[in-house]
Amino acid sequence: MEAVPHGTSRATVTRLPEGVAETDRLAVEEPLEIRVDGTAVAVTMRTPGHDEELALGFCLTEGLHPAAAHPSADLAANVVEVDAPGADLATVQRSFYTSSSCGVCGKGALEAVAVDAARVDSDLTVPFDVVASLPGRLRSGQPAFDLTGGLHATGLFTADGELRCVREDVGRHNALDKIIGAQFNEDALPLHDKVVLLSGRASFELLQKALVARIPVIAAVGAPSSLAVSLAQEFNVTLCGFVRGDGFNVYTAPQRIEASR
Amino acid sequence: MEAVPHGTSRATVTRLPEGVAETDRLAVEEPLEIRVDGTAVAVTMRTPGHDEELALGFCLTEGLHPAAAHPSADLAANVVEVDAPGADLATVQRSFYTSSSCGVCGKGALEAVAVDAARVDSDLTVPFDVVASLPGRLRSGQPAFDLTGGLHATGLFTADGELRCVREDVGRHNALDKIIGAQFNEDALPLHDKVVLLSGRASFELLQKALVARIPVIAAVGAPSSLAVSLAQEFNVTLCGFVRGDGFNVYTAPQRIEASR
Repeated sequence: MEAVPHGTSRATVTRLPEGVAETDRLAVEEPLEIRVDGTAVAVTMRTPGHDEELALGFCLTEGLHPAAAHPSADLAANVVEVDAPGADLATVQRSFYTSSSCGVCGKGALEAVAVDAARVDSDLTVPFDVVASLPGRLRSGQPAFDLTGGLHATGLFTADGELRCVREDVGRHNALDKIIGAQFNEDALPLHDKVVLLSGRASFELLQKALVARIPVIAAVGAPSSLAVSLAQEFNVTLCGFVRGDGFNVYTAPQRIEASR
Repeated sequence: MEAVPHGTSRATVTRLPEGVAETDRLAVEEPLEIRVDGTAVAVTMRTPGHDEELALGFCLTEGLHPAAAHPSADLAANVVEVDAPGADLATVQRSFYTSSSCGVCGKGALEAVAVDAARVDSDLTVPFDVVASLPGRLRSGQPAFDLTGGLHATGLFTADGELRCVREDVGRHNALDKIIGAQFNEDALPLHDKVVLLSGRASFELLQKALVARIPVIAAVGAPSSLAVSLAQEFNVTLCGFVRGDGFNVYTAPQRIEASR
């Protein structure tokens, strides 16, 4: 396989029933180990690129307070070192080593869905037309982006629909972590005046991450899960699903969507 | 939300631009804690149903040797107890507590992708027509099944295309774990004469689980990742992607697909 840009590689495949050999583009999936102050805390299967942002976003949404991230001296391609000088490493190891990119692994069942956060009280409003236009804006802002293939994409937008940041990954949680890490690097957190578009479904874990970043409006091209809706309801997050150019469903906090047209 | 069958619940949503309230079906997502001989080893976000099969499949594909699984006396809905009398609990805690439903979390980066298994030498062959027909067979075998909504489905088939088992879940890995756990309960492992259809994409983790169950042919409606293709290549697993009624791609071990028609 020859490496090509945008987190993809090439492979020769046999297309049936024609039986001809073709070149196909694959989404690259590789493990990344995240270390905090020298201690390995998680391995996530991710698409290489923006690894430091991924590690920062992961640590932020796990409640740690990272200062900076940089590649490791050894095994540089698959390890990111995070500096978190204010963190109590014993706490990190206890509450975090058993955690993961899933945000829930290793925790107790009740602890896994207990979210310690304040309600999102942002008075942001977004016109209907803007939300409906987000999938098209994400595609046009990232020509190599492939909504139907092996990569998930996440876009960060203003309430006017301006695309501020887009990240792609085989894992939905990784794409959102990369967005949050990028905004941390730009000193742009919290994101109380922004909208996020997810190219796939909206699960509990994605809502949990968005809540930590204080994003008031989440739009998903796919379906939300029951727990994602419950979490959005509890914390006053506006959750839109099945977002297409001609309309969408609003599950929670509909007051933030202006009924334009 | 009122509970309805097949892992779904109901929610009232606002459909825009019409602005009308509608009833929508949501895929249920809830945490499940898996305990081995009384020790909590993982929490996975799953769709309730077939929880014991999920726990058995998870333990099997993590290299543990479970004997049986049963609901817990306390918190019954969200905890499954697994008996694994032959397991060294110290080993379990060391190598497994930090693991997760992802199959990779908490492990070192290199350890995460090191698979200790023999090549799959099954001489099973499957006609092209059968593979192409699997998505349709999965749908007709499970009328409530929703390929486009919030649930993933996984189907286990004979080489003639007979559907033997189907399981649904918000998590792809959980649906496959449930299949493997169900086959364990029927004393039907290893699955060297079976074909699996995944309703979504094929990642490293799914190939790893299929390899433990010794499934020689994996068909996915979606795209495979680069690491899934590498693993299939290394262990002689036949991996088909973008499987539709009119054709598909074969990435590895094409000798198992008979060019019928």
